[in-house]
Amino acid sequence: MAFKVTQSDIQAAHEKIQPFIHRTPVLTCQSINEMVGAELFFKCENFQKIGAFKARGGINAVLSLPEEARSKGVVTHSSGNHAQAIALAAKMAGVPAYIVMPKTAPEVKKKAVAGYGAQITLCEPTQQSREENSARIQEETGATFISPYNDYAVITGQATCAKELIEDQPDLDIIIAPVGGGGLLAGSALSALYYNPEMTVYAGEPEGAKDTYLSMEAGTITKVEKPSSIADGLLASMGDKNFEIIKELVKDIFLVSDEEIVAAMRIIWERMKIIIEPSCAVPFAAILKNKDVFAGKKVGVILTGGNVDLAKLPF
Amino acid sequence: MAFKVTQSDIQAAHEKIQPFIHRTPVLTCQSINEMVGAELFFKCENFQKIGAFKARGGINAVLSLPEEARSKGVVTHSSGNHAQAIALAAKMAGVPAYIVMPKTAPEVKKKAVAGYGAQITLCEPTQQSREENSARIQEETGATFISPYNDYAVITGQATCAKELIEDQPDLDIIIAPVGGGGLLAGSALSALYYNPEMTVYAGEPEGAKDTYLSMEAGTITKVEKPSSIADGLLASMGDKNFEIIKELVKDIFLVSDEEIVAAMRIIWERMKIIIEPSCAVPFAAILKNKDVFAGKKVGVILTGGNVDLAKLPF
Repeated sequence: MAFKVTQSDIQAAHEKIQPFIHRTPVLTCQSINEMVGAELFFKCENFQKIGAFKARGGINAVLSLPEEARSKGVVTHSSGNHAQAIALAAKMAGVPAYIVMPKTAPEVKKKAVAGYGAQITLCEPTQQSREENSARIQEETGATFISPYNDYAVITGQATCAKELIEDQPDLDIIIAPVGGGGLLAGSALSALYYNPEMTVYAGEPEGAKDTYLSMEAGTITKVEKPSSIADGLLASMGDKNFEIIKELVKDIFLVSDEEIVAAMRIIWERMKIIIEPSCAVPFAAILKNKDVFAGKKVGVILTGGNVDLAKLPF
Repeated sequence: MAFKVTQSDIQAAHEKIQPFIHRTPVLTCQSINEMVGAELFFKCENFQKIGAFKARGGINAVLSLPEEARSKGVVTHSSGNHAQAIALAAKMAGVPAYIVMPKTAPEVKKKAVAGYGAQITLCEPTQQSREENSARIQEETGATFISPYNDYAVITGQATCAKELIEDQPDLDIIIAPVGGGGLLAGSALSALYYNPEMTVYAGEPEGAKDTYLSMEAGTITKVEKPSSIADGLLASMGDKNFEIIKELVKDIFLVSDEEIVAAMRIIWERMKIIIEPSCAVPFAAILKNKDVFAGKKVGVILTGGNVDLAKLPF
């Protein structure tokens, strides 16, 4: 099957965004490897600009807009990291950014978005309220809507993360990412296909927001009413552009509970001394829960972000 | 003045311990540089084995013991990181480790020491109780006492940290470390002298444990009664072997309050997404408090460790 995002699209996006992003390190941890019985290679996007991989997709999407559209600004809705990504990208491009954020988003994320000079509109923490608010702003301002995930330029930008991981560690057997709306997972699966087609792609998903799991079972997009999880970055519903890639290329979705997410997050904080947000701990929680799948393998784990509210830690 | 620890001692120690330690990364952070008005290069010993620089001195001290002494084991007292270092070094050498820890030491540190198979004796959180307990164990077992800091092999091991930092960043104007007992500071000052003598050496110290500050003013070791600070790794009193180096080579000691330490720690957690313990935030707190001293300079900052008790965070 041919996908709308090609290998040369990913190559071109990587060249375009490279001056604006960090090439994040790949870390390993002996005591975690011993605990799991596998070799894990953590791609540390918590050290990325804005503290999350979303800088990649956001910057690629804004820089890919035609000049005229870009000058009217960009609008999006996001629980936080995509919001920061679009705010940063718009600031770089010198255009206005209008950001719709659920009022439940962590304070640290709201503050960061405001710090980039974006205009914030707070909404109810539902998909409907997010979409209504951004549609209204789009109409009022003429700004272009940039989906947090259901957008080929965003998917292409996110794909550069797995591309770098494969370049640094070409002999991986497996790559695993978390899944919310599906932008990172679709991008990672495409980079796996183009740069290391032998590799198996898995995802971790919170039990309370298991729309991807259900969609894979049903073969068609299946929503979850009122998704809820401590992994606040993974509550969005799967996009159709993402699902057409994911259903072909991703082997399995592993579900994990909030308790398992917090336990996994705590192990990474304590053993690796790095700060990751709950959403980011989901793939590692999935590995801990399914050790037999990963035993003896070289596993690339995408650590997606580190934007936690230190005043509201789950420990 | 000639010092008892020479450049070739540091070179030899580095070769001896290299197979057992990590060469830790040097990280930078643009937003922190903008905040301070200087270029900071953070030497991340929070990523070191046992989560702290003390692995260097501990391993060097144990490996430097004559065979016969080593076989009877080693004993020490420490609020935590040196304890882990000696426990790890003894485990590597296959000899017993007897560790005296104040009962107030963080749980995470006690657990880690026990995990290396060391025998723990809990004591009162005073210098006297620490020393009495380790003297008794020394007598009972014939084990060799290894001071957390007042020991040339320990100082020489700690010196390898600044040596690596200078190798990676040869054009530093300043190096700053925290000071407790003085092992790291003395070692850092010696590496500065031998590997980049143009560099100025400073230290940060908690106001509640300012014995080094007072000792520098008086020109002789001056103790503080009942030292107290959130920086639990810096409560020990300056050793005479350390002070003979520090009084010659360190330009100034900057005092910081517990409040300033927590604020500095929080900035590093939020901006750099790495976990550091309160003691480790002391030099950065000193920089934030004395921006004029550091303005426009290239500053090496030793981040000493990341062993915090997540159940007892100060945020």
